[in-house]
Amino acid sequence: MNDHNSCLEIKAIDTLAQQNAIQRQSQLTKPPGSLGVLESIAIQLAGHQGLVCPQINRPWVTVFAADHGIANEGVSAFPAVVTQEMVKNFSAGGAAITVLAKANDAAFEVVDVGVLADVTEEGKKPFPNLISCRVAAGSFNFLHQAAMSNEMLYKAQNAGCLAVERALEQGADLFIGGEMGIGNTTSATAIIAQICNVAVTDIVGIGTGIHSEQKLHKIKVIERALQIHQADMTSPMQVLTCVGGLEIAALVGAYLTCAEQGVTIVVDGVIACAAALIVCEVAPQAKGWMMFGHQSIEPAQQAVFHHLDVRPILDLSMRLGEGSGAAMAIPVIKMACLLHAQMATFDEAGVSESDEVMDKNG
Amino acid sequence: MNDHNSCLEIKAIDTLAQQNAIQRQSQLTKPPGSLGVLESIAIQLAGHQGLVCPQINRPWVTVFAADHGIANEGVSAFPAVVTQEMVKNFSAGGAAITVLAKANDAAFEVVDVGVLADVTEEGKKPFPNLISCRVAAGSFNFLHQAAMSNEMLYKAQNAGCLAVERALEQGADLFIGGEMGIGNTTSATAIIAQICNVAVTDIVGIGTGIHSEQKLHKIKVIERALQIHQADMTSPMQVLTCVGGLEIAALVGAYLTCAEQGVTIVVDGVIACAAALIVCEVAPQAKGWMMFGHQSIEPAQQAVFHHLDVRPILDLSMRLGEGSGAAMAIPVIKMACLLHAQMATFDEAGVSESDEVMDKNG
Repeated sequence: MNDHNSCLEIKAIDTLAQQNAIQRQSQLTKPPGSLGVLESIAIQLAGHQGLVCPQINRPWVTVFAADHGIANEGVSAFPAVVTQEMVKNFSAGGAAITVLAKANDAAFEVVDVGVLADVTEEGKKPFPNLISCRVAAGSFNFLHQAAMSNEMLYKAQNAGCLAVERALEQGADLFIGGEMGIGNTTSATAIIAQICNVAVTDIVGIGTGIHSEQKLHKIKVIERALQIHQADMTSPMQVLTCVGGLEIAALVGAYLTCAEQGVTIVVDGVIACAAALIVCEVAPQAKGWMMFGHQSIEPAQQAVFHHLDVRPILDLSMRLGEGSGAAMAIPVIKMACLLHAQMATFDEAGVSESDEVMDKNG
Repeated sequence: MNDHNSCLEIKAIDTLAQQNAIQRQSQLTKPPGSLGVLESIAIQLAGHQGLVCPQINRPWVTVFAADHGIANEGVSAFPAVVTQEMVKNFSAGGAAITVLAKANDAAFEVVDVGVLADVTEEGKKPFPNLISCRVAAGSFNFLHQAAMSNEMLYKAQNAGCLAVERALEQGADLFIGGEMGIGNTTSATAIIAQICNVAVTDIVGIGTGIHSEQKLHKIKVIERALQIHQADMTSPMQVLTCVGGLEIAALVGAYLTCAEQGVTIVVDGVIACAAALIVCEVAPQAKGWMMFGHQSIEPAQQAVFHHLDVRPILDLSMRLGEGSGAAMAIPVIKMACLLHAQMATFDEAGVSESDEVMDKNG
C-alpha cells in the first residue's frame, strides 16, 4: 500500500537555474519587471526544469471522477447521475476540458475512481480515454460515517499516483488534475473550512448554481459534518478521510507524486485547491511545484489562496472545475516561456537601458 | 483629409446572432454561466461576425511608434532614443510583442508615425515589417505649445486608418493596436485625467519604472500642461491635439476605422486605453467593437475602465505596452470560440440538466 503520509521526499527546486533565469529576465528588451506574472512563471519553471530557458511541450490532463454520498443531502443543483453522464461526455470529447485539452495539444484521460455505476459495464462500446480505477461506488454520506475508509483513501491516492506515472512515461512536463463529482464543492468546502480554520458560512459558494435556500442548507450540512467528525480530524489526511471524496484523494496522490518526481502542477478550481491544500499541509515544499491556474468565484478557493499565500494566473469568473481553469492557463505559461527564451537582450538588439540602470552601471 | 470627427458611421452589432449565441450557451454541457467571461466573449464576437459560432482565424497586430516632445521634461526612465531602437527591435522580431504575435499566428507590422530620426535612412539594409507613415519628427513639447497641429492629427489618424485597411485586405478578424513612444504614459495620463475628470495625482503611475521623485515631477508636468491648454480642450479631439501623441492619434484613427468596418478590437494598456477613451467619447457605439485585453498596473487605465464600465480579460501585472497585454488575450478569445462551437449540448451528450432547469421545463 502506498501511504504518502510516511515516506515523502519532495524534489528540490533548482535554485541556480532560477538565479540564471532571473539574470536573463533583467537583460531582455523591456523595462525591468514589466512582464509581471509572466516573469515569475518563467523563473519558477526554470527551477523545475533546471534550465535557464524552460519549455512546455507536453501538457497532460487527467480528470478524476467519483460520486459523493453527501449528494443525497440535496447540496447540488444537478442530480448525481450527471457524474457518470459527464464521464461519457469526457470520453466522447464534448466537455469543456476536452475541448481545451485538444486546443492546447494536451494529452487527456478520465479516470473513474468511483462513480455510482460503472459506465463500462453498460455495453460493448469502448470508452476512449477512460481508465477504470474504481475504489467504490462513490464515497459514503459523511453525515452518517466517514466519507471513506483508510483503504479507500490509499487506493484513491494510488489512482492519482498511477496517472502521474502514465503522464511521465509519455514525457509530460506539466500536469493538470481535473475532477468531476456531483456534490464535491460540499466536500471541498468542508476540507478547506477545517484546515484553514474559517467559518463555513463565510466560504460556501453556489457550486453548480444552487439558489440561496439550498445554500443555507449546504452550510448547515457542512457545519454538522464538521461537528460530527471533529474529534477524528487530527491530521490533514484524516480530514480527507472524514469529509473528502475519492477524486479529491486521487488529486492528493497525483500532486504528491508530481512533487516527488519533479513535474510542474497547475492547480485548477476549488476542488483541486482543497487537494493542493492538504498536500501543502503534509509536505510544505510541494508548494514550489504548484502554479494556480484560475481564480473561481467560489469563496472557499480564496481561503486556500490566502492560507497558502499564492496568486492565481487567471480570473475569468469561471466555476466549472474539470481542470478547465488550469487548462486556460496553459497558453499563458507557454507564452511566458517563449518571451523568456526568444526576446532579444539589450545588447543583442542595441537598445539603450533605463537611465537608472545606466547610472548604476556607471 | 480624413476627418473622423464629422462623418462617423459605426457598424451595428448583429443582435440576432448574439441572441442565438446566448441560446447556444444555455444548451452546452456545463452549469449555466460557469464559463464566466468566456461566455461573454463568444457572445460579443457572435454579434461582430453575425454568426452563432464565431471564429478568430487571422489576428493582426500593428504597433504605432512616435516620439514625444514632452520626453525632454525628464518624465521617463528611458532616453528618447529608445523609441527608434525599439522600432528596429520590432522589425528584427526581438521585442515582446513580436514574440507574442508569432506565437499566436498573428500578422505583425510596425508603423513609424513620427519617431525622432527616420531609421530607414540609416543605411541600405531593409527593415522587415516596418511601414513609414512619418507625420513629423515627434510631437511637440506640450508644455510650450499644442502637441500637434490639426494637420498632424489628421495625418496620424490616417496612418491608423491605413493600417486597418491593410489588415482587412489580408482578411484580419481581430485588430490589436500597440504603441511605442518614450514619454507616452505622460501624454496618455494627461488625456485620461482631462476626459475622465480625475485628479492627476490619483492616476499617475511609474510608466517604464520611474522613481518616486520623478513621479512627483511627472505629476507637476501633467498638471501644468492641463492648465496651459484648458481653454482649448473643448472636445476629445482637441484634448488629443493639445496633450496627445502621434501614435495615440494613429490608434484613434485605427479604432474608429475598425468600428466603422466591423472588425473586433482588442485594446491594450494605458496608452491604447487613452485612444479607446477618445473614440468612445466621439462615437459611443464604438465600445461594442472593443474588448479590453489586460489590466496593467497603471492607475490611469483603471480610470478608463471605470469611465467606460468595462472589465479587462487578463490581469497579469504587465506594464509594457506594445500591444503585449492584448496579444496575451488572443488564446483566451480563441478558446472561448472553441468552447462555444465544440462543446456538446445536453441533448447531444445525453447529460441531465440542473434540477432548476428541469423544474422550469416542467
